[in-house]
Amino acid sequence: MIEAGVFGATGYTGVELIRLLGRHEGVRLSLATSRSNAGRNLAEVFPGAPETDLVAPDQAPLEDLDVVFLCLPHGKSAEVAVAALQAGVRVIDLSADFRLADPDLYQQWYGLQHPAPELLDEAVYGLTETARERLPGARLVANPGCYPTSALLALYPLMLESAVSGQIIVDAKYGVSGAGRAPKLTTQFVEIAEDLRPYSIGRAHRHLPEMESTLAGWSDWQPRLLFSPHLVPIPRGLLSTLYVPLPTGWAEAQIHELFLETYADEAFITVLPAGEVASMRQVNHSNRCSIGLTVADGTLIVTSAIDNLQKGAAGQALQNMNVVFGLNETDGLL
Amino acid sequence: MIEAGVFGATGYTGVELIRLLGRHEGVRLSLATSRSNAGRNLAEVFPGAPETDLVAPDQAPLEDLDVVFLCLPHGKSAEVAVAALQAGVRVIDLSADFRLADPDLYQQWYGLQHPAPELLDEAVYGLTETARERLPGARLVANPGCYPTSALLALYPLMLESAVSGQIIVDAKYGVSGAGRAPKLTTQFVEIAEDLRPYSIGRAHRHLPEMESTLAGWSDWQPRLLFSPHLVPIPRGLLSTLYVPLPTGWAEAQIHELFLETYADEAFITVLPAGEVASMRQVNHSNRCSIGLTVADGTLIVTSAIDNLQKGAAGQALQNMNVVFGLNETDGLL
Amino acid sequence: MIEAGVFGATGYTGVELIRLLGRHEGVRLSLATSRSNAGRNLAEVFPGAPETDLVAPDQAPLEDLDVVFLCLPHGKSAEVAVAALQAGVRVIDLSADFRLADPDLYQQWYGLQHPAPELLDEAVYGLTETARERLPGARLVANPGCYPTSALLALYPLMLESAVSGQIIVDAKYGVSGAGRAPKLTTQFVEIAEDLRPYSIGRAHRHLPEMESTLAGWSDWQPRLLFSPHLVPIPRGLLSTLYVPLPTGWAEAQIHELFLETYADEAFITVLPAGEVASMRQVNHSNRCSIGLTVADGTLIVTSAIDNLQKGAAGQALQNMNVVFGLNETDGLL
Amino acid sequence: MIEAGVFGATGYTGVELIRLLGRHEGVRLSLATSRSNAGRNLAEVFPGAPETDLVAPDQAPLEDLDVVFLCLPHGKSAEVAVAALQAGVRVIDLSADFRLADPDLYQQWYGLQHPAPELLDEAVYGLTETARERLPGARLVANPGCYPTSALLALYPLMLESAVSGQIIVDAKYGVSGAGRAPKLTTQFVEIAEDLRPYSIGRAHRHLPEMESTLAGWSDWQPRLLFSPHLVPIPRGLLSTLYVPLPTGWAEAQIHELFLETYADEAFITVLPAGEVASMRQVNHSNRCSIGLTVADGTLIVTSAIDNLQKGAAGQALQNMNVVFGLNETDGLL
Repeated sequence: MIEAGVFGATGYTGVELIRLLGRHEGVRLSLATSRSNAGRNLAEVFPGAPETDLVAPDQAPLEDLDVVFLCLPHGKSAEVAVAALQAGVRVIDLSADFRLADPDLYQQWYGLQHPAPELLDEAVYGLTETARERLPGARLVANPGCYPTSALLALYPLMLESAVSGQIIVDAKYGVSGAGRAPKLTTQFVEIAEDLRPYSIGRAHRHLPEMESTLAGWSDWQPRLLFSPHLVPIPRGLLSTLYVPLPTGWAEAQIHELFLETYADEAFITVLPAGEVASMRQVNHSNRCSIGLTVADGTLIVTSAIDNLQKGAAGQALQNMNVVFGLNETDGLL
Repeated sequence: MIEAGVFGATGYTGVELIRLLGRHEGVRLSLATSRSNAGRNLAEVFPGAPETDLVAPDQAPLEDLDVVFLCLPHGKSAEVAVAALQAGVRVIDLSADFRLADPDLYQQWYGLQHPAPELLDEAVYGLTETARERLPGARLVANPGCYPTSALLALYPLMLESAVSGQIIVDAKYGVSGAGRAPKLTTQFVEIAEDLRPYSIGRAHRHLPEMESTLAGWSDWQPRLLFSPHLVPIPRGLLSTLYVPLPTGWAEAQIHELFLETYADEAFITVLPAGEVASMRQVNHSNRCSIGLTVADGTLIVTSAIDNLQKGAAGQALQNMNVVFGLNETDGLL
Repeated sequence: MIEAGVFGATGYTGVELIRLLGRHEGVRLSLATSRSNAGRNLAEVFPGAPETDLVAPDQAPLEDLDVVFLCLPHGKSAEVAVAALQAGVRVIDLSADFRLADPDLYQQWYGLQHPAPELLDEAVYGLTETARERLPGARLVANPGCYPTSALLALYPLMLESAVSGQIIVDAKYGVSGAGRAPKLTTQFVEIAEDLRPYSIGRAHRHLPEMESTLAGWSDWQPRLLFSPHLVPIPRGLLSTLYVPLPTGWAEAQIHELFLETYADEAFITVLPAGEVASMRQVNHSNRCSIGLTVADGTLIVTSAIDNLQKGAAGQALQNMNVVFGLNETDGLL
Repeated sequence: MIEAGVFGATGYTGVELIRLLGRHEGVRLSLATSRSNAGRNLAEVFPGAPETDLVAPDQAPLEDLDVVFLCLPHGKSAEVAVAALQAGVRVIDLSADFRLADPDLYQQWYGLQHPAPELLDEAVYGLTETARERLPGARLVANPGCYPTSALLALYPLMLESAVSGQIIVDAKYGVSGAGRAPKLTTQFVEIAEDLRPYSIGRAHRHLPEMESTLAGWSDWQPRLLFSPHLVPIPRGLLSTLYVPLPTGWAEAQIHELFLETYADEAFITVLPAGEVASMRQVNHSNRCSIGLTVADGTLIVTSAIDNLQKGAAGQALQNMNVVFGLNETDGLL
């Protein structure tokens, strides 16, 4: 039985993770922390959540744990990761702290000096389907962002075959839970309910360097992206529509075949039949990624849907834990 | 041309009022105040709102105005009302400050000593359809709350004929704009989007004494209510379902006739055909109140729908202004 | 391993049931039927549903099954139930066909002669928490309607103690999946999205006799209800607000104690702390019923929330199956 | 006073148009037709709509009208247009029948032979801001589709200056009223409420040739588009995100200046300040188009928002009528 802790248990990601852990027969939730709600029960703080005692993070006993999941803001996460690793506890970090291998890039985009640059080499970027060699036994996993997960799974087969010939556009639409649980005017119900709003479009969003540097690691060229996220009045879900210029000679059937082969053994990836498109409802409340492929005028349009709280966060974190500990990859996730 | 001012222009009610004033050919908006956004333009602060300069409330010139609408928190509103009346400006107050004639009741429910008890006698409770005698020329109008508007219009004909024989139940469902624009966890999109939540049920909500004291003024007995508001994931709208025990001898046809007669000349009240029920969509974005009547087992079930921002707030305020100044009652409201 | 079949697999209830069965380790789904989609795969017909082959109902082999779940229209359901029982298969019927013990009442409300009146005596009304004596080994279970489930669980402790003194009002609010999947104008997105609409209020809804006759069976008097359902723009969820006149002498604390005792050992019923109210989000996507209790002016207000597709349909059906077959009652439901 | 008729009054567009006409002081609605609801009142058929008698289309007297608005399916519309023009009535057609100048292109995309090819030359494509020369006095106006309106207004200034250097991508998101009012499974509330779904992406949607042929008319080259509409769970609204490759030498400031100049005198077009993006809420329930401009890596990203029922349909139709009849262009639209 794996003893697990969750830091930052009262956000949307933390609660989703605790729900999933409750269905995993090989893990016991031994610790859940909350800074502002220590001493209370999770179900009091979050309607419908499991009854779980909340502990202050600085009083959290690490020594009896096998793994901690960090659902904390960037900066904070790295600090707890250092302490956990010193105590011999494996770390799956859902923040951005270990996603960028280059500490200068981190400082540029996140506005602070990296708190633990010595760990960056060891951290495994946990886009599970692309990281099977390094994940087993890993001490520190950087769980990918939700946007990068949906976009990178849509691009991975293409990068392996160099089937991209220019600027890639990622037009993403995502549910409001992706913006976190802290009260803000921009995520109040009335502000959102009749709106659809782009934000940080072009080359302005923090997930851009995460995507570009991961893509660069799969190939010998450096792709450039435009990335346009749009906030949609849905509680959860993420759909990315990607526009990828194809090199001469690639037809829809070949592309389709390439994706089917690359993901043939993947439990959580559905490559849709030719002519179908991905939609949020295909993957809601599941750890799956649904991928549709359409070619027109030499451009491949990929539609890629995930549940932002599962495959985009807590579900993939659990999937990574399964691989790290040598369990069945789908345990707790079906 | 009536010169009007709006205090508290950046809330949902203030913006709705400014929109409506823009369509009223007999009124000019000369002043709009905002404490936190003074110096900015309303359209910057509120997407889609009219372009209107915002002035700090304490620098607002009152002297050139004919009327001010106060969309302010209770307590604050009475202070501005005093100043406006002193400057010879008529006041339509959308807060609760002048709705309860009894200052002790005010203190009990609103937790502060009434700031201007000397004005309570003069204030006219502006449920327009029931206040036509006192409104023309009034200096101070207390615009009713949204719940009281929907419930009192559903009960007014019955009270006039003493067609109520016991405890009245008001089960109300309302859209999220009724909870105001200040960011709160409970009105964040994700918290609301899949929820339906009762709150302050029984005899706990501040609109209860407003309803009971108004009802008492229409009759020689003192009715008692139970009142159960429910927050629904809709931006706007208010539906009250009332359960009214009838005295022996009242049948559905008579009740229907009574409502038709009472509201025969009302431009904004629709008494539905027998067997039909009121619903939010019948009145959205309008100043109308839609009323359905069903009798079963000696109980009258009234369904009463309004748009909380129009007939429940800004629309009725404008309707009251029209009556106060002797204009056509529907000006700016169709 | 229990071999199960689902008739009517492509509606909202059928799909929910198939999802739940997929998590139940003691059951195998051996059959799923669909009249209009026979030969196809459930995931094609219903985005996100499990991949399950669909068989035409009249070609469905019953002989190898241990249990069938009937998610069929009333009338149709009874026909399949007869055939299944003859083949020695236990039946859990999610239609209304076996909920009313009196075939005349059935004919009056459902407009057709009962197809199998000889089975009515044997059928067990499967409101699980109230039917533990008759469920184990039962051949035919009538799974309750969603409204009756939420209302009856709110009234059961009171009826046992005769703590009701007059007309009961049930004001219910429910999500759109409760209206079925067949396309209708009234459930089109735009018609619903900004609306809240009562329907069949008073004594007009088919679930009224189901509630009244069940209540009558728990006591020696015949309570009368008013029942007002309201359609709310939410995909799923059901909240009933009940107004129950208390006999003299019952205070809130006693009522609270009564509920706590009655449901002390129930895994799926949460009696909320005094002063709290039930809301949909507390129970979404779970088989739980959340109950809040408030007393005011001699009336008990019960708020009772369930997920209409789980405790209100598929979840309770599975809970009943667990009890019928002597399994752990929570298997597949946590 | 202009006498107007509306054919197809009970769809979302027809009702919106009738609402707008009710606020226009220079027009009287003399006729509203409905095939399936003739003899009834519009308010009965459509909750909240104005009380308007509905006439069967084949019994509709044309002779007394000055103008008819056709909110009919393609094919049907052209037939009524012919009859109206013969009766000396001006026509504003909201269907696709007169949007494509080439009858072969019409047959290819709409699957039927054009019913009145002899009128195609005379028809004025009514994207008002771009058609001021031909609209005054026009007998037949082809009102643009909602997608083309949002995309073409975003591209018009660029085409005039040849500031486009390659394939244009239009990624559009639109509210469900755009899919019409006829009941379909795909637009049922539950199917939509938690979904976001692309459809007819690439070069498959009927609005593609409308956009491409209009663009070709503004320039001496033939641009190619990719067009990806996405259905979003919102009743109304349309946001297009366009990716336009710029020729060498164009910077964001110049592009911004170009848009400001082109639309300097337009009442209904808002060119947002640099760095801001368009969103649905800026234009909901208005006839405005809001345009945001961002340049990154040599690509211009235009965000363009309209209300699909106003500027995307009924509002623009009224705007066109104002120009045709020489009225103030904003009459009835503010």
